[in-house]
Amino acid sequence: MFLTRSEYDRGVNTFSPEGRLFQVEYAIEAIKLGSTAVGLKTKEGVVLAVEKRITSPLLEPSSVEKIMEIDEHIGCAMSGLTADARTLVEHGRVETQNHRFSYNEPMSVESTTQALCDLALRFGEGDEESMSRPFGVSLLIAGHDDNGPCLYHTDPSGTFWQCNAKAIGSGSEGADTALQEHYDVNMTLEEAETLALSTLKQVMEEKVTSSNVDIAKVAPTYHLYTPEEVEAVIQRL
Amino acid sequence: MFLTRSEYDRGVNTFSPEGRLFQVEYAIEAIKLGSTAVGLKTKEGVVLAVEKRITSPLLEPSSVEKIMEIDEHIGCAMSGLTADARTLVEHGRVETQNHRFSYNEPMSVESTTQALCDLALRFGEGDEESMSRPFGVSLLIAGHDDNGPCLYHTDPSGTFWQCNAKAIGSGSEGADTALQEHYDVNMTLEEAETLALSTLKQVMEEKVTSSNVDIAKVAPTYHLYTPEEVEAVIQRL
Amino acid sequence: MFLTRSEYDRGVNTFSPEGRLFQVEYAIEAIKLGSTAVGLKTKEGVVLAVEKRITSPLLEPSSVEKIMEIDEHIGCAMSGLTADARTLVEHGRVETQNHRFSYNEPMSVESTTQALCDLALRFGEGDEESMSRPFGVSLLIAGHDDNGPCLYHTDPSGTFWQCNAKAIGSGSEGADTALQEHYDVNMTLEEAETLALSTLKQVMEEKVTSSNVDIAKVAPTYHLYTPEEVEAVIQRL
Amino acid sequence: MFLTRSEYDRGVNTFSPEGRLFQVEYAIEAIKLGSTAVGLKTKEGVVLAVEKRITSPLLEPSSVEKIMEIDEHIGCAMSGLTADARTLVEHGRVETQNHRFSYNEPMSVESTTQALCDLALRFGEGDEESMSRPFGVSLLIAGHDDNGPCLYHTDPSGTFWQCNAKAIGSGSEGADTALQEHYDVNMTLEEAETLALSTLKQVMEEKVTSSNVDIAKVAPTYHLYTPEEVEAVIQRL
Amino acid sequence: MFLTRSEYDRGVNTFSPEGRLFQVEYAIEAIKLGSTAVGLKTKEGVVLAVEKRITSPLLEPSSVEKIMEIDEHIGCAMSGLTADARTLVEHGRVETQNHRFSYNEPMSVESTTQALCDLALRFGEGDEESMSRPFGVSLLIAGHDDNGPCLYHTDPSGTFWQCNAKAIGSGSEGADTALQEHYDVNMTLEEAETLALSTLKQVMEEKVTSSNVDIAKVAPTYHLYTPEEVEAVIQRL
Amino acid sequence: MFLTRSEYDRGVNTFSPEGRLFQVEYAIEAIKLGSTAVGLKTKEGVVLAVEKRITSPLLEPSSVEKIMEIDEHIGCAMSGLTADARTLVEHGRVETQNHRFSYNEPMSVESTTQALCDLALRFGEGDEESMSRPFGVSLLIAGHDDNGPCLYHTDPSGTFWQCNAKAIGSGSEGADTALQEHYDVNMTLEEAETLALSTLKQVMEEKVTSSNVDIAKVAPTYHLYTPEEVEAVIQRL
Amino acid sequence: MFLTRSEYDRGVNTFSPEGRLFQVEYAIEAIKLGSTAVGLKTKEGVVLAVEKRITSPLLEPSSVEKIMEIDEHIGCAMSGLTADARTLVEHGRVETQNHRFSYNEPMSVESTTQALCDLALRFGEGDEESMSRPFGVSLLIAGHDDNGPCLYHTDPSGTFWQCNAKAIGSGSEGADTALQEHYDVNMTLEEAETLALSTLKQVMEEKVTSSNVDIAKVAPTYHLYTPEEVEAVIQRL
Repeated sequence: MFLTRSEYDRGVNTFSPEGRLFQVEYAIEAIKLGSTAVGLKTKEGVVLAVEKRITSPLLEPSSVEKIMEIDEHIGCAMSGLTADARTLVEHGRVETQNHRFSYNEPMSVESTTQALCDLALRFGEGDEESMSRPFGVSLLIAGHDDNGPCLYHTDPSGTFWQCNAKAIGSGSEGADTALQEHYDVNMTLEEAETLALSTLKQVMEEKVTSSNVDIAKVAPTYHLYTPEEVEAVIQRL
Repeated sequence: MFLTRSEYDRGVNTFSPEGRLFQVEYAIEAIKLGSTAVGLKTKEGVVLAVEKRITSPLLEPSSVEKIMEIDEHIGCAMSGLTADARTLVEHGRVETQNHRFSYNEPMSVESTTQALCDLALRFGEGDEESMSRPFGVSLLIAGHDDNGPCLYHTDPSGTFWQCNAKAIGSGSEGADTALQEHYDVNMTLEEAETLALSTLKQVMEEKVTSSNVDIAKVAPTYHLYTPEEVEAVIQRL
Repeated sequence: MFLTRSEYDRGVNTFSPEGRLFQVEYAIEAIKLGSTAVGLKTKEGVVLAVEKRITSPLLEPSSVEKIMEIDEHIGCAMSGLTADARTLVEHGRVETQNHRFSYNEPMSVESTTQALCDLALRFGEGDEESMSRPFGVSLLIAGHDDNGPCLYHTDPSGTFWQCNAKAIGSGSEGADTALQEHYDVNMTLEEAETLALSTLKQVMEEKVTSSNVDIAKVAPTYHLYTPEEVEAVIQRL
Repeated sequence: MFLTRSEYDRGVNTFSPEGRLFQVEYAIEAIKLGSTAVGLKTKEGVVLAVEKRITSPLLEPSSVEKIMEIDEHIGCAMSGLTADARTLVEHGRVETQNHRFSYNEPMSVESTTQALCDLALRFGEGDEESMSRPFGVSLLIAGHDDNGPCLYHTDPSGTFWQCNAKAIGSGSEGADTALQEHYDVNMTLEEAETLALSTLKQVMEEKVTSSNVDIAKVAPTYHLYTPEEVEAVIQRL
Repeated sequence: MFLTRSEYDRGVNTFSPEGRLFQVEYAIEAIKLGSTAVGLKTKEGVVLAVEKRITSPLLEPSSVEKIMEIDEHIGCAMSGLTADARTLVEHGRVETQNHRFSYNEPMSVESTTQALCDLALRFGEGDEESMSRPFGVSLLIAGHDDNGPCLYHTDPSGTFWQCNAKAIGSGSEGADTALQEHYDVNMTLEEAETLALSTLKQVMEEKVTSSNVDIAKVAPTYHLYTPEEVEAVIQRL
Repeated sequence: MFLTRSEYDRGVNTFSPEGRLFQVEYAIEAIKLGSTAVGLKTKEGVVLAVEKRITSPLLEPSSVEKIMEIDEHIGCAMSGLTADARTLVEHGRVETQNHRFSYNEPMSVESTTQALCDLALRFGEGDEESMSRPFGVSLLIAGHDDNGPCLYHTDPSGTFWQCNAKAIGSGSEGADTALQEHYDVNMTLEEAETLALSTLKQVMEEKVTSSNVDIAKVAPTYHLYTPEEVEAVIQRL
Repeated sequence: MFLTRSEYDRGVNTFSPEGRLFQVEYAIEAIKLGSTAVGLKTKEGVVLAVEKRITSPLLEPSSVEKIMEIDEHIGCAMSGLTADARTLVEHGRVETQNHRFSYNEPMSVESTTQALCDLALRFGEGDEESMSRPFGVSLLIAGHDDNGPCLYHTDPSGTFWQCNAKAIGSGSEGADTALQEHYDVNMTLEEAETLALSTLKQVMEEKVTSSNVDIAKVAPTYHLYTPEEVEAVIQRL
């Protein structure tokens, strides 16, 4: 009676008989191929840490940007297609700047997250800003606003969740288990840095060095750690 | 003479020989995969209650929003694709605000419901606001206007019905039976709260706690229950 | 030489070798799945009566609207997809209001019917108001203008006919036979009410009650019967 | 080397290897399913006569419009899809009114015919006024202008011819033979009325009555015969 | 390695592996089904002659227009789809009128021909004036400008050539042979009239009469021969 | 794992797994069916020569334009689809005129060539000027600007190269070999004329005459040789 | 369950079930067919060197441009489709000029690279500037700004990386290995020139001459080496 699964999965935005959207599910697969990223929320602020895959010794590590600033009170870590992430981040930068210009105050982290998800949801509609396919990227959005520190997780379907701690990318399964085991809502920012890096260490194939991971915090403003600061966290492991 | 069913069901908006629209029927399937939500109308106001699926202990329960405010006199519970629901709710918020601005009075609940269904019906038309597929979401819209309390049920086809009590989502079949058995048009709001939660309890696999259900009322304004208020209802069961 | 029928029927708006438009024919099938409606014209005015399918005791019968007002001198009964009917009716309301505003007089019933059929004909053309598929709905349009009472029947192809009496929907075949047998152009409005309801009674599976049928008249203005008025007609049967 | 015929015939506007446009040919088939219409030109004016298929005794015969006025000096008879014909006629009414408004004189019959054919030719081009398929209708356009009486025949390809006498629709083959046999360029208008009706009579399955045929003349202005006037012509047969 | 020819030929505007455009070639086939037309250039002016297929004795021969005036110094004969030819001719009339209006002088015959070919080339591009398929028509364009008399031949690919004599349509092969044998660049206009008609006579199945051929000349202005003038040429044969 | 070549080659602008664009390659095939053209650059100026295929003795040889002027300092020879070449040349004429108007100096030959290639590259994008398929034409663009004489070769992919001598069209392979053997960067313009014609002579099936070849030079302005001038070059062979 | 790889790879912008974008991967294949290019960053500036494939002795070597200036402080080397590269470079020139005009300072090298990648990412979206397929080109972008010398590598997916040294094109695998072995971050610009050329020499089939390679540097402004300067580097090998 029904077609087999395979015949529904190429329609960019079509339901299968079971009510599934396969292109979105495949975009989620693209993220499972991506590098791992973790985020942890503490009362002092939010920590983001990512694995960077340096495919050649001649590549400039700092140009492999997996953590990016959206506004001075918001940063994000990504996993999946780099160019798609840049488009979303650039969209977020424009939105937060416009908000500052119009209202003379920073945009809330949830509104910023919603704005990115709106763009992600609108794929396949042919208008100016949207893509003709789902965005193949997941984001961990760390921010600090009137509600204090917060951490959001977005996926290619345009859905988002608020989390205390979350891992995305190829090592997310193992990393999520480690976070559930060790995360404590009362941990200090320093303890969160250590847990973030030890979690990454478990799922990375290479030895952790200051050039193959990046760490950033929003506490309460965005700061990307220098190689020395990263090295200091590595030493604490 | 005819093609088999399977060959009609991928056209986004095409009739089959029996006069059916399969993509809409498949979107309705998406809702059967969703979490359960119930709504009950009493003379004092309307109660909405939803199951929240908390997939990880590190997820912030309050960020899994299955009940949302549209205007101060209208709230809604959803089942199906979260991002689609957010789009509809956001559309409803803009419509009701525009109405207040233009006419200096709240929009009626039926007009608001009609506005959401108009958007749902227009899928596949390629204009600015519409989606390229049906919205994979069902809503229970609770409101209070000049006609008193009211409860509407919408589905992906853009159709809506006014109900005294209704359940949607994966447990809707069992929940609807329970509601038909126990609902009484003269029950108090407190009794409705209890019936809503006991109905959810029947169809949920997990134990009901203040973090895996949400309750809201419109009586006559929208109020989302705090964890303590939810706990109080749980105690009454 | 020719393809079999099945291979022409998915083109939204394409002729088959015999000169047929299958998507329109399939939309007409959608109406055969709908609830039954009847209309009768008398010299005093026009009567519309519809079957309402109340799928749950918790559904508000009055929210299952199968008869709707277009303007104060025009009403219509529908069979088929409810949301499509609402779109057509809303279009009719805008057209008649615009006409009153521009010309300071009511729009004629034929012009109103033509306006609805124009919209129905334009499916598949991708402009702002038209649908990407045929409207899956048939209407019985009752009205009263300078030419006195009149009753129109429209179908998904955008064609309309003026009738003395007509039935549409799943029971239309039996109902039309009954109307041809018993309709008399000189019957009173009261006799027409009785014939409308007795005709519906024949084709409905359930017992006729004041909550599963609706009756309306345009004589010379639109009036939807209250449950008490419906009950009075039921008593006369 | 070539595909079989069947594989070219679904492209809306594509040549087959033999240089044929199948969708246009299929639209011409739609006319062969339509009711029969005849037109005759005399020196006094032009007569149009059509068969009306009254499918139910409760249908208002006058609402089955197969002959329509375009302007006071132009009328037309149609065969094929009724709603398509109405669109063309409405287009013709707007064009002739615009012409009167701009130039303060009636539009010539040939220019009017050309305007209708231009619209018919433009199907499949996606602009505002054109259809997404060929118009499934043939017209006999009767008019009177500075060149005296004239009769045009149009088909779905957007081609038109000037004729002395012509039949279209399901009985056109037999009717054309009868016209060629009996038509005389010097016949009076009254003789033309009689020949038109006797020709229809030959190809109609039912007995000719004043309610299942319509007659109109343009001599020099459009006039649709009353049932009494039709009856008078029937008596002359 | 390659697909067979058949699978390339339905793309409206796609090259086959051998570098061919099949839809254009098929449109050229449409012309081989058309009536025959011939054109001859002399030093006194250009003669055009066409076969008219009068399918019914009740058809007005003068309404079968196969030779049309574009401007007072340009005329054209056509073979292929009549409605397509009218569109091209109407485009040419607008272009030449605009040129007269803008520059106060007649448009040159080559510029006019180029304008028609530009329109023909642009099929499948979806803009306002172009067609969604190639124009299925060939033209012989006769004109007289500062360079004296000239004759152009256009085909559906948008290519044009200047000729001394040329035949198009179903009988073009035989007619071209006859023209090559008998045409003389120094012949008089009268001799050209005779050669044009005798050439047509060879390829027509019916006897040549003043109602089944049309003759026109541009010498130096366009003139369509009256039936009497045609009869006079027939007598000279 | 991969599809065979044939299944990628109909997508207008799609890469095959090996990174090839087949529609562009097929358009290049169209040029291999075209007439041969050669170009030679000398220090005195550039010579272009083309074969003209005169299919009928009644065709005006001068209307078979294979060499065209773009601006007074730029000319081009073409091979492939004539109508496509005219579109490109017309585009070049507009661009060079606009440049003269805006900057009061001639456009450089390279900028002109780039402008034609930009148009060629943009096929399949649906905007106003671009084609829906690649341009099936190759050009040899001869010019003279501040850098002295120059010769460019363009192909359907929108790529261009600067050459000392080049042949295009069906005889290009043999002609290129001859040019490589005999071309000398210090040859005079007269020697280049002779080499151009002797090269054409080798690859043409017919005897070279003043009516089946065209010669032009840009030295430093464009000049198309008269039949007498062509004859003079033929005599020198 | 899944389709084989081949059936996903023709959708221009569609994910496969494993989350891959095949058209982008195929465009990357196009680059593997291209000529080899290398870039090296030193503290004094950046060196670019490319192989030029001169297919004919009559081709002007300087017109085979594989290294192009974007702004006076930015140059780039390309591998893949030449016409695509020109479009990107032209876009970069407009962007950098606009930036100078608006802000009166040079655009940073990273912003310029991002601008080119934004255009590359937007393929398939149908707006004015984007292509209907991925750009089949990789760039090595060399520049000098406030951060000193820098070298970026872009690919068809719209992703970019900052590198110390990088090779692209058909010989990139061997060249990258050579660069990793011999590159030293402290080498002088002269040493970098020598390493660039010796790397190219290893992967080129032909002997290196001043006409089949191009060298450029940005130190701190763009300079394309003259044949004499190239010859001098060859002598040093």
